[in-house]
Amino acid sequence: MARIAFIGMGIMGGPMARHLADAGHEVVGVANAQAVQKLVERGGRGAANVREAVTGADVVITMVPDSPDVESVALGSEGIYANVAPGTLHIDCSTIRPDTARALAVAGAASGVQVVDAPVSGGESGAIEGTLSIMVGGEPDAVARATPYLEIVGKTIVHVGPAGSGQTVKAANQLIVAGTIELVAEALVLVEAYGVDPRAAFTVLAGGLAGNAILDRKGAAMIDRHFAPGFRVDLHHKDMGIVLAAAREAAVAIPLGERVAQLMASLRAQGHGGLDHSALLLQVEEASGTR
Amino acid sequence: MARIAFIGMGIMGGPMARHLADAGHEVVGVANAQAVQKLVERGGRGAANVREAVTGADVVITMVPDSPDVESVALGSEGIYANVAPGTLHIDCSTIRPDTARALAVAGAASGVQVVDAPVSGGESGAIEGTLSIMVGGEPDAVARATPYLEIVGKTIVHVGPAGSGQTVKAANQLIVAGTIELVAEALVLVEAYGVDPRAAFTVLAGGLAGNAILDRKGAAMIDRHFAPGFRVDLHHKDMGIVLAAAREAAVAIPLGERVAQLMASLRAQGHGGLDHSALLLQVEEASGTR
Amino acid sequence: MARIAFIGMGIMGGPMARHLADAGHEVVGVANAQAVQKLVERGGRGAANVREAVTGADVVITMVPDSPDVESVALGSEGIYANVAPGTLHIDCSTIRPDTARALAVAGAASGVQVVDAPVSGGESGAIEGTLSIMVGGEPDAVARATPYLEIVGKTIVHVGPAGSGQTVKAANQLIVAGTIELVAEALVLVEAYGVDPRAAFTVLAGGLAGNAILDRKGAAMIDRHFAPGFRVDLHHKDMGIVLAAAREAAVAIPLGERVAQLMASLRAQGHGGLDHSALLLQVEEASGTR
Amino acid sequence: MARIAFIGMGIMGGPMARHLADAGHEVVGVANAQAVQKLVERGGRGAANVREAVTGADVVITMVPDSPDVESVALGSEGIYANVAPGTLHIDCSTIRPDTARALAVAGAASGVQVVDAPVSGGESGAIEGTLSIMVGGEPDAVARATPYLEIVGKTIVHVGPAGSGQTVKAANQLIVAGTIELVAEALVLVEAYGVDPRAAFTVLAGGLAGNAILDRKGAAMIDRHFAPGFRVDLHHKDMGIVLAAAREAAVAIPLGERVAQLMASLRAQGHGGLDHSALLLQVEEASGTR
Repeated sequence: MARIAFIGMGIMGGPMARHLADAGHEVVGVANAQAVQKLVERGGRGAANVREAVTGADVVITMVPDSPDVESVALGSEGIYANVAPGTLHIDCSTIRPDTARALAVAGAASGVQVVDAPVSGGESGAIEGTLSIMVGGEPDAVARATPYLEIVGKTIVHVGPAGSGQTVKAANQLIVAGTIELVAEALVLVEAYGVDPRAAFTVLAGGLAGNAILDRKGAAMIDRHFAPGFRVDLHHKDMGIVLAAAREAAVAIPLGERVAQLMASLRAQGHGGLDHSALLLQVEEASGTR
Repeated sequence: MARIAFIGMGIMGGPMARHLADAGHEVVGVANAQAVQKLVERGGRGAANVREAVTGADVVITMVPDSPDVESVALGSEGIYANVAPGTLHIDCSTIRPDTARALAVAGAASGVQVVDAPVSGGESGAIEGTLSIMVGGEPDAVARATPYLEIVGKTIVHVGPAGSGQTVKAANQLIVAGTIELVAEALVLVEAYGVDPRAAFTVLAGGLAGNAILDRKGAAMIDRHFAPGFRVDLHHKDMGIVLAAAREAAVAIPLGERVAQLMASLRAQGHGGLDHSALLLQVEEASGTR
Repeated sequence: MARIAFIGMGIMGGPMARHLADAGHEVVGVANAQAVQKLVERGGRGAANVREAVTGADVVITMVPDSPDVESVALGSEGIYANVAPGTLHIDCSTIRPDTARALAVAGAASGVQVVDAPVSGGESGAIEGTLSIMVGGEPDAVARATPYLEIVGKTIVHVGPAGSGQTVKAANQLIVAGTIELVAEALVLVEAYGVDPRAAFTVLAGGLAGNAILDRKGAAMIDRHFAPGFRVDLHHKDMGIVLAAAREAAVAIPLGERVAQLMASLRAQGHGGLDHSALLLQVEEASGTR
Repeated sequence: MARIAFIGMGIMGGPMARHLADAGHEVVGVANAQAVQKLVERGGRGAANVREAVTGADVVITMVPDSPDVESVALGSEGIYANVAPGTLHIDCSTIRPDTARALAVAGAASGVQVVDAPVSGGESGAIEGTLSIMVGGEPDAVARATPYLEIVGKTIVHVGPAGSGQTVKAANQLIVAGTIELVAEALVLVEAYGVDPRAAFTVLAGGLAGNAILDRKGAAMIDRHFAPGFRVDLHHKDMGIVLAAAREAAVAIPLGERVAQLMASLRAQGHGGLDHSALLLQVEEASGTR
């Protein structure tokens, strides 16, 4: 069993840390009191800060909101790389910019730390059920070393390429997820406008070529207009910024991606940043004059 | 066992008619020689025209390309309604305009024919495997009567509302399918631009919240740029015309739907109408300067 | 001087009819009491219906909202073509479908009536000032005959091609106008978001390559959020339907046109159909979270 | 008469510098040999580098491609601010990021240099004719001091706000210009698809509410498919990056702006970065299947 420092135990990180504790690992978490308490109930414990948590750790896992947050916990005299022993493994599960991920891998290597980027998909339910899909970037030996831990929290673990590649695939993931939510929302408002029962419609749509994980996991809540997160608009907006920057940098045309990025930005500008990303439905209703 | 007239035995209709023959029904098909020959091998037979096929039939199933095609075979002195006995059931599996479907139900009723609209989703593979998803509109007793036949060719059969409702849900289906193809294409070109192996990427994308039937059934062919139909761009373009008209009529905003409809139209205008609809990928490559 | 029947004296048609009366023509109008009263003050008179107005007319001018309205006043036993003498000239200034314009030219010819389509641009101010831009379709001799009348109400009169061509160019005009309003609205919200004085900004924008007639004629009202028509959203929405149909029919890609058509449709769905089309600004503000 | 250092004498800067020389100012240019030779013919002279050019100057004018270029010539030991006397005026006519412009104003002030941002609009013809539209940001006294010089090269000079405001308005300008080019291109392909003479169409469009500077200055060249710059796609693509960033930062929705930004990016990705920005027409033709 390994000693694991887990930094960032929110909607996603919390259940992940608890799965690792349940699997017998010694998990030391940095989080708010409530999250730490839940971890303690599973045999883990809390630490006052990053330095305390990572000192003596075999593995450090980070699950924080954005690129600067990872840089903040990884770099500097109080950060991960300055306070772990050479040979430590850092698995970053946050969703951040691919170029930041590459830079962290270089910075970690300078301290003898093996860094892999391992962003996840599957949402809150995937984290709770331990069925996340995880896209892993990094050196083969580091990825091999990270895999047993990732298999505890996820079901589909795929090594997609060198450092940063996990984040590139995650960007593609967020593009598809946002677009699919919007497509489902457009379909929902359309069938309702014609008086069709949306539950029956979603059942049959899910069975054919239109079938997707959004229909399966969020369809019922969207019909009921329940938008409790889940995954917040604020975060998906941040992720779409990564998608747009990556596409523009590589001159890749993403017409649906750019459109849904702007709808997500509008949703946030209207004060809905704290809702689940499926609240894109509100934009469709507003533009259709039905709200 | 029933006597079934089957009109329109192409990529979708052909396998459907053969499943019905395999199930023991007496199937009389109207189609080209090759399709009829395949039906004969399963115990069915061909007819020279619609009138001959439907005379004496208990059930008539139509699977033709567009609204005018259904009107052409259903109405007029040589058509279905003028040549069947009262009480005959007409199941239209074509994808047509919802208002045309409603008009046919009225016209059929005037001849004592029960009409249900039952468009399908699932593509060629769904037709061959008998796993289609079928969205059914019509009167409850007519739908109940149609269901045993539909269960032979499909796996998910849902009664979604009165006449025309099946077509409305099919429009929503085509909106989601076209949009999802485009999203997968954008994601594919994006990850390739960053040197990530698309097979690994699609494997992990399929396992999370980005998972969808297009990744499952068409992802590999898209990576290989194999665009043999399948479902032709010409037909999906026609269907997007139905989607756009339905949305505009009801003032429903479908920003991604309108965008992908125009990409499909461009693909066709460029001479690719005969390719599989997954060839939307060509548009992404062209706009990204990688073709 | 000619005897002119003028059918449809609203925001645009009213000033046009009065200019013709001011020029010395005998104008007989079909309109509401208020519009007729204004015409009487300029020397014209009213008629009870189309038949009465057109009987004995040398020229009939129509300025009505939509394709069915023109068909309604032109065709049938009470319509123009059944009640005028052979050799009469019909100038249709309405904005309608190009194919309807072509059909009317054929129907008129069958009654010996010369028909030209002559839709106008320039808005209410252009109608009042007699400075409209007029795009004329029809046979050369009919257009030559219509030109002196059009020169009374407009400044730029151009024969663009055979019957229906005027309407095709008008569709292009409405595409550019809607798109330009939206661009000006986006620019306005952008500069305001950064605290720049919009009046100063519009002054300098108008002087360079961004200069356009919307900035000149509607810019100040947009800054003040004055949306009294002018040209109503309902009508521009109708016109965008013509644009979309024409583009789809010819497989012409109009990405900005389709986008602004949907924004116009949303504006109307939200209950703003009676505002000036420059109220597209409301959509930008809503999507930017500033309303 | 003032001594003016002019840095960056390309398509725009070249004619501007020559106008200043023609007006009697002592102009010292930093540019390639050909541009310097033209300046010498008008009484100016060349300098080997920025330091030589600005030493002893009363006014420094910069007209370079992008934000890093301005920073490169303004900052550092060989740059403007380190080599001019306190009290010198720096007029930056480049199109750069508003936040970079604000930062330069601060950096200049630290050296006693008054900095104004004064980006221009009007294209090559506006530069040659001295009719540019200039949007000026900065402190009132600095702007007042810059105005006489700007009046030599432009016709519409407007002080729009504090440092950076000129660049914000220029971003709005580039948004409108790109969008208008695209709208004109869509209109052109549409009328041509219906066999209408585009020259006649453009004449009448220019006279009404669709009238704009693109029709006036670039319409004929677009009809002829002459895409010699003018203003290069590469530069307008760079500018759209500024527009997108400014809009996203302020949460302003620019649906047409984002769409045309991506069309511009595609045009560049396809290898057309060296053409005039009116080559957006190529994208419309390609998407319409007419190329």
